[in-house]
Amino acid sequence: MGQSINKKKIINDPIYGFVSIPGELIFDLIQHPFFQRLRHIKQLGLTDLIYPGAIHTRFNHALGAMHLMGKVLDNLRLKGIDITPQEYEASQIAILLHDIGHGPFSHALEETLLPQINHESISFLFMKELNSLFNDQLNLALQIFQNTYQRKFFHQLVSSQLDTDRLDYLRRDCFYTGVSEGSIGVERIVVMLNVSQDQLVVEEKGIYSIENFLNSRRLMYWQVYLHKTAVSAERMLVNLIRRAQYLIQSGEALLCSASLQLFLSNSFTLEDFKRKEVINNFGQLDDNDIWGAIKLWQNHPDQILSTLCHMLLHRNLFKIRLTNEPIEKTTIENIRSEISDRYQILRKDAAFLFSHGVVSNEAYVSGGQGINILTKRGELKEIADASDLPNIKALSKIVKKNYLCYPKNVSLKRSTFRGADLL
Amino acid sequence: MGQSINKKKIINDPIYGFVSIPGELIFDLIQHPFFQRLRHIKQLGLTDLIYPGAIHTRFNHALGAMHLMGKVLDNLRLKGIDITPQEYEASQIAILLHDIGHGPFSHALEETLLPQINHESISFLFMKELNSLFNDQLNLALQIFQNTYQRKFFHQLVSSQLDTDRLDYLRRDCFYTGVSEGSIGVERIVVMLNVSQDQLVVEEKGIYSIENFLNSRRLMYWQVYLHKTAVSAERMLVNLIRRAQYLIQSGEALLCSASLQLFLSNSFTLEDFKRKEVINNFGQLDDNDIWGAIKLWQNHPDQILSTLCHMLLHRNLFKIRLTNEPIEKTTIENIRSEISDRYQILRKDAAFLFSHGVVSNEAYVSGGQGINILTKRGELKEIADASDLPNIKALSKIVKKNYLCYPKNVSLKRSTFRGADLL
Amino acid sequence: MGQSINKKKIINDPIYGFVSIPGELIFDLIQHPFFQRLRHIKQLGLTDLIYPGAIHTRFNHALGAMHLMGKVLDNLRLKGIDITPQEYEASQIAILLHDIGHGPFSHALEETLLPQINHESISFLFMKELNSLFNDQLNLALQIFQNTYQRKFFHQLVSSQLDTDRLDYLRRDCFYTGVSEGSIGVERIVVMLNVSQDQLVVEEKGIYSIENFLNSRRLMYWQVYLHKTAVSAERMLVNLIRRAQYLIQSGEALLCSASLQLFLSNSFTLEDFKRKEVINNFGQLDDNDIWGAIKLWQNHPDQILSTLCHMLLHRNLFKIRLTNEPIEKTTIENIRSEISDRYQILRKDAAFLFSHGVVSNEAYVSGGQGINILTKRGELKEIADASDLPNIKALSKIVKKNYLCYPKNVSLKRSTFRGADLL
Amino acid sequence: MGQSINKKKIINDPIYGFVSIPGELIFDLIQHPFFQRLRHIKQLGLTDLIYPGAIHTRFNHALGAMHLMGKVLDNLRLKGIDITPQEYEASQIAILLHDIGHGPFSHALEETLLPQINHESISFLFMKELNSLFNDQLNLALQIFQNTYQRKFFHQLVSSQLDTDRLDYLRRDCFYTGVSEGSIGVERIVVMLNVSQDQLVVEEKGIYSIENFLNSRRLMYWQVYLHKTAVSAERMLVNLIRRAQYLIQSGEALLCSASLQLFLSNSFTLEDFKRKEVINNFGQLDDNDIWGAIKLWQNHPDQILSTLCHMLLHRNLFKIRLTNEPIEKTTIENIRSEISDRYQILRKDAAFLFSHGVVSNEAYVSGGQGINILTKRGELKEIADASDLPNIKALSKIVKKNYLCYPKNVSLKRSTFRGADLL
Repeated sequence: MGQSINKKKIINDPIYGFVSIPGELIFDLIQHPFFQRLRHIKQLGLTDLIYPGAIHTRFNHALGAMHLMGKVLDNLRLKGIDITPQEYEASQIAILLHDIGHGPFSHALEETLLPQINHESISFLFMKELNSLFNDQLNLALQIFQNTYQRKFFHQLVSSQLDTDRLDYLRRDCFYTGVSEGSIGVERIVVMLNVSQDQLVVEEKGIYSIENFLNSRRLMYWQVYLHKTAVSAERMLVNLIRRAQYLIQSGEALLCSASLQLFLSNSFTLEDFKRKEVINNFGQLDDNDIWGAIKLWQNHPDQILSTLCHMLLHRNLFKIRLTNEPIEKTTIENIRSEISDRYQILRKDAAFLFSHGVVSNEAYVSGGQGINILTKRGELKEIADASDLPNIKALSKIVKKNYLCYPKNVSLKRSTFRGADLL
Repeated sequence: MGQSINKKKIINDPIYGFVSIPGELIFDLIQHPFFQRLRHIKQLGLTDLIYPGAIHTRFNHALGAMHLMGKVLDNLRLKGIDITPQEYEASQIAILLHDIGHGPFSHALEETLLPQINHESISFLFMKELNSLFNDQLNLALQIFQNTYQRKFFHQLVSSQLDTDRLDYLRRDCFYTGVSEGSIGVERIVVMLNVSQDQLVVEEKGIYSIENFLNSRRLMYWQVYLHKTAVSAERMLVNLIRRAQYLIQSGEALLCSASLQLFLSNSFTLEDFKRKEVINNFGQLDDNDIWGAIKLWQNHPDQILSTLCHMLLHRNLFKIRLTNEPIEKTTIENIRSEISDRYQILRKDAAFLFSHGVVSNEAYVSGGQGINILTKRGELKEIADASDLPNIKALSKIVKKNYLCYPKNVSLKRSTFRGADLL
Repeated sequence: MGQSINKKKIINDPIYGFVSIPGELIFDLIQHPFFQRLRHIKQLGLTDLIYPGAIHTRFNHALGAMHLMGKVLDNLRLKGIDITPQEYEASQIAILLHDIGHGPFSHALEETLLPQINHESISFLFMKELNSLFNDQLNLALQIFQNTYQRKFFHQLVSSQLDTDRLDYLRRDCFYTGVSEGSIGVERIVVMLNVSQDQLVVEEKGIYSIENFLNSRRLMYWQVYLHKTAVSAERMLVNLIRRAQYLIQSGEALLCSASLQLFLSNSFTLEDFKRKEVINNFGQLDDNDIWGAIKLWQNHPDQILSTLCHMLLHRNLFKIRLTNEPIEKTTIENIRSEISDRYQILRKDAAFLFSHGVVSNEAYVSGGQGINILTKRGELKEIADASDLPNIKALSKIVKKNYLCYPKNVSLKRSTFRGADLL
Repeated sequence: MGQSINKKKIINDPIYGFVSIPGELIFDLIQHPFFQRLRHIKQLGLTDLIYPGAIHTRFNHALGAMHLMGKVLDNLRLKGIDITPQEYEASQIAILLHDIGHGPFSHALEETLLPQINHESISFLFMKELNSLFNDQLNLALQIFQNTYQRKFFHQLVSSQLDTDRLDYLRRDCFYTGVSEGSIGVERIVVMLNVSQDQLVVEEKGIYSIENFLNSRRLMYWQVYLHKTAVSAERMLVNLIRRAQYLIQSGEALLCSASLQLFLSNSFTLEDFKRKEVINNFGQLDDNDIWGAIKLWQNHPDQILSTLCHMLLHRNLFKIRLTNEPIEKTTIENIRSEISDRYQILRKDAAFLFSHGVVSNEAYVSGGQGINILTKRGELKEIADASDLPNIKALSKIVKKNYLCYPKNVSLKRSTFRGADLL
């Protein structure tokens, strides 16, 4: 009789049916509190306020990406690429942990709590921490993650314009938001991948699948990631956290979890994260610390803080305008005055009740790190060069839009805008 | 030109594609904070600890059930059943709000915070509250909800063994858990429904669809709703809340949101809910109050409380045993002693670190409130009588199982069990 | 660089996404005209007259079953079952070819053209023929198919109550008919399979998946395989072929393909199939020979033949009655007289314009060849014994129904029936 | 009690779940032999030789398009567009019958059997024939079909660059081929449609859905409709039919159905179709006439005819080359000589064993008949002008490719090609 698979080692996934946990080390990494934390961090932050189905977590995504990595490597082996069991496991670990450094609400909170640090650096520190806990068994995974391993395609599967991270999150975000146009043929892409000159490449007959993947990515940007209302909600949360930081740093008492308190009171550098206290506290921070704090702060005497809490809890979001042209200074001063009047607050405090900036859509960045096509004659070409498809070139164009958002009960004369509102 | 539909009035749903919000009143009800609260209450409580995809909310479910109600009523109209626009809207409101009285984590929290009150009674109070806010526009919805409206089938669509609540939640829970065997043919059931003698009935040719529905329901009970580990996690949360109540009521300080504090400190009756303060505070309570508290309490000096918080946060769950035979008293005393020794706590306090009881699976309850089949000859028969299908009768049998759960680091001699472990 | 996979070796499948052809031998078997013939034989015969989506072929099914065999074997290997590359390939070949002996319209035509031969015997002859063409490379596949190979679980995966044949066809038939209640969780069953004492077994935690599988099978029988109208259409085709045989054997000229002519003119035994001429002609017969003949015969001077052709082409099907009680002789004589009068034909010829008989639903046959559960303690139990689920026992009951079908323009007094019409 | 819906009036569809037949007239049209014929004509001709799942029929598609028409009209009514029950039914009839004039294998056979007639003209004649059979009840449907009805958007829903024909066939072809990248969000497009100035328009917020629709259309052209091997198979069938015509018109006897015989022996004009004999015989022609003939002709003494029959039956297809540059005359003469030598046939007869020509991909044709966007300010703009999306313009570019195909056992020196092989 074959040994019975431990039932904990198969996890249901609405998208792939099952995700198998391939061995003890990965099982134990998943069990670790640093990873379990990802159960409580939504993949798309506040986007479920717009697409109520979009409640999937970084935990779901990380497992899905690990699953896809396995599928890709199985497929490469079928094509004769030699992959050792060690490389196989290390690649799965690298992708499993690639996002472990994300904080709650991802970008919104990183911007305020860790303004000088990117989440990849923190992922790397977590991985090193786990590596020492697990007796250096993550050495190869760390090399792949850092791109110091000589077989470059492993790193490209973890981090590139066609990595298993993107393959999973595009499909998953599309599935949960219900934006069916964003769906990509992941299975087909998986079988079209190959390796040439140690580079990850796409076989020529897969060119339409890649084009569809890039189109979907661009569409998901406009429909989901940069959705007007999602941008607006995110900016409110940024302002809310900034207000909390401001109050705490001004000496006001603000109840919240110990971990959150630590990060609101300090502005840590990457160097600081090498201290156990800092990384361990970050490893306890998830969406619940924020929502828990919002629940506590909704009755706080600071009018600005409690207003923002109430607005987020009751989904009373800023209205937002998107334009092709930059927002003019006079418009910004205008809105600042309106808010100051409306809420009877100082002009400097009004900044917490509106936001402006730029969002951009980079579906595909042509150039050195591009997606390579392997032609039938065995040559490598970047996809933008390999095809006579005008679309790919169109997709390489970066599109930027400017936004201004502010409370619904504040009005702004349309005439102050240069350029039309966009979608 | 037709008037443009306000874009907010169409909501993406991963299951149905779109849910349309049919008019202003329902739109405004959805916008109300009482309903927005449901965004933050997961439909299946802690079940996502077992099925990580099961993160859908009562908000998702309520919208889905409203959508199905519309589909059923459209279909009945096609069959010649006269349904006024007022009845149509009232039925949709009744199902939309049928679960609005659920607290965070549903059953687990009701058992501890509101031991003498069922959530339907609170839903009813919320609906009355909304009715006065909306100038009595919910009168008919309230009649349908209470079953005082003369056309009984409307109530049966809101609450019966074949209501739109069950149709949506079975399908939705199956979709998000990934338990594909639980899937039901909702579309087919919808077109098989009819009305006879003011009763909701199923046309005879739909009998296999109903049988499948009941089979799925039974299967979802064992696979999901009564999943061993889900029962275990829920019991831990119940114990955690009970410990918090005990500490607060013993005069210990426990930080948490004001709303949660109120319910931990008091044991309210249904009568109390008629006070604005009580219902409004309940209307602010969601999963985040609990998770926020767990985050705060994980460092609390009470060993039992902080232990339970840690265990839930890190998914270190009680192990659980299910048996056909009742758990014997000696076994329970045995485990109490083990825990008391292991944690160095009093025997009376050990009760917070284990749990025992009974779970039961009632897929279909035959009898007066059963599902009626309309035969081709126009007669009504209860499904268990209408068919020569042995399965339906088998499904009517209530199955009970006994559970005992306790920390993994506590051991219990197998010999103390009478009867075998079950699945 | 890995060798590029020949693009022909990946075949799109609407259900599994992709079916990979694992090697040259299997590729060449699929290319062989004997196998290509399956492209032109619908899996469900005339059932697309009722479920218009049910147009999938035996070609689709055979590839799907081969794909599932690979998934099962991969999974067993993960559980530590040793499977050699030769066993792996042979199992895939055995399931790929298990239905290669089916004739056009499967059961309907076998009953008339090959009354004394079952299709498994012909599949075996085809496999032997292919074995000699392919230099004995199918030896092991033949052993597995015949159940003479010592490791019995391979044969059980090809032919048993839980074989990959059933797993694929239930899912596929459900997908294409659109009978969503019939859907089964194939992925879950695949991971629940194991091998114990060289027997195929299901791990105990998979018991609900198997129950669902058996329920679905039973439901598909009533909803699809034994659907009243499908039975009616099949009986018409049987009568049509019988009439053609009768005419040819009476010396009438009937145009049709040479292969069909051969089988209409002769009544071959299994012995005859050992002649190259017979097996090669059978290997050219597909649905198109029959439809092509129907097209030619619709203008044939024999009124009975041309009537049946017209009726099938224009979907003017016999009406059908199903009862629990056997059809009485007087009823049959009654209908014979009515038809003889209505069509002005001899009473003996009337038999070509109606049909009666018995259909039965054997969802699960308990006993020696049953489905075995591997309990957590390592014991094997048949599923009907392993569980306290009343459903499984209910499913083991064979249900028989009697049918009588005849042209719509013939009437039969209801009083002549004993017992009620059934669904 | 509501009247029970006749069960025949609901048809399972794997894509939409159910297609409801909305009334008696449409039910009777579907029952008519002209329409039942579509059950036997595959939507994608020989494409199932490449994508074995692509076996769906024009019957499936026509019902699906009718279903979508209903959904679109329901949605327009919700937006306040007044649509009478007569217009509703007529639109459904017009789309149901829009393809009724297609012959077997669609384009391949039209090219040979009806070289001077397009299928829309024949659809129109069939509709007129049905109109007289059904007492002028199709008058309004005919007006909408012909675009003589004053409310132009009805015709646009039947025939335009965003009609319900395309919406159904793109989704259906994608579903059955398994080319998941081609999937379109039909539900979303349906709710984005509106009517302005009696024109069908798309609301501005639907612009990404339309872009996705056009991208999918383009992709399906390259992946499916113009797939190399599908083009090759189609050209073989064209040659086969041309050879049969040539033989019959030379006085050779060729067995086949009476209807096919008629069309092989004559070259009818649209005028001829006004004769009952011609249209009725065309109304009996389906894929089975062709496959039945191929079965008969595979043993025909004419070597070219029997060779082509064998090749198609055994899927021994022409190899094909696609280039951006036109095929040079010398290449063609070269291949003609090779074939003449290889098969020992006359140079003039060699033309039946190869083929060359041009295929083109017109995903979107910008200009007067384009897709119109309704901006938020109420203006109409063609989609290529309405957006700053570079993709739409790219999609408007017509791409042409040249092909040359010939038997696999004939070789052609690569040097004779100008330009590279394409995908």
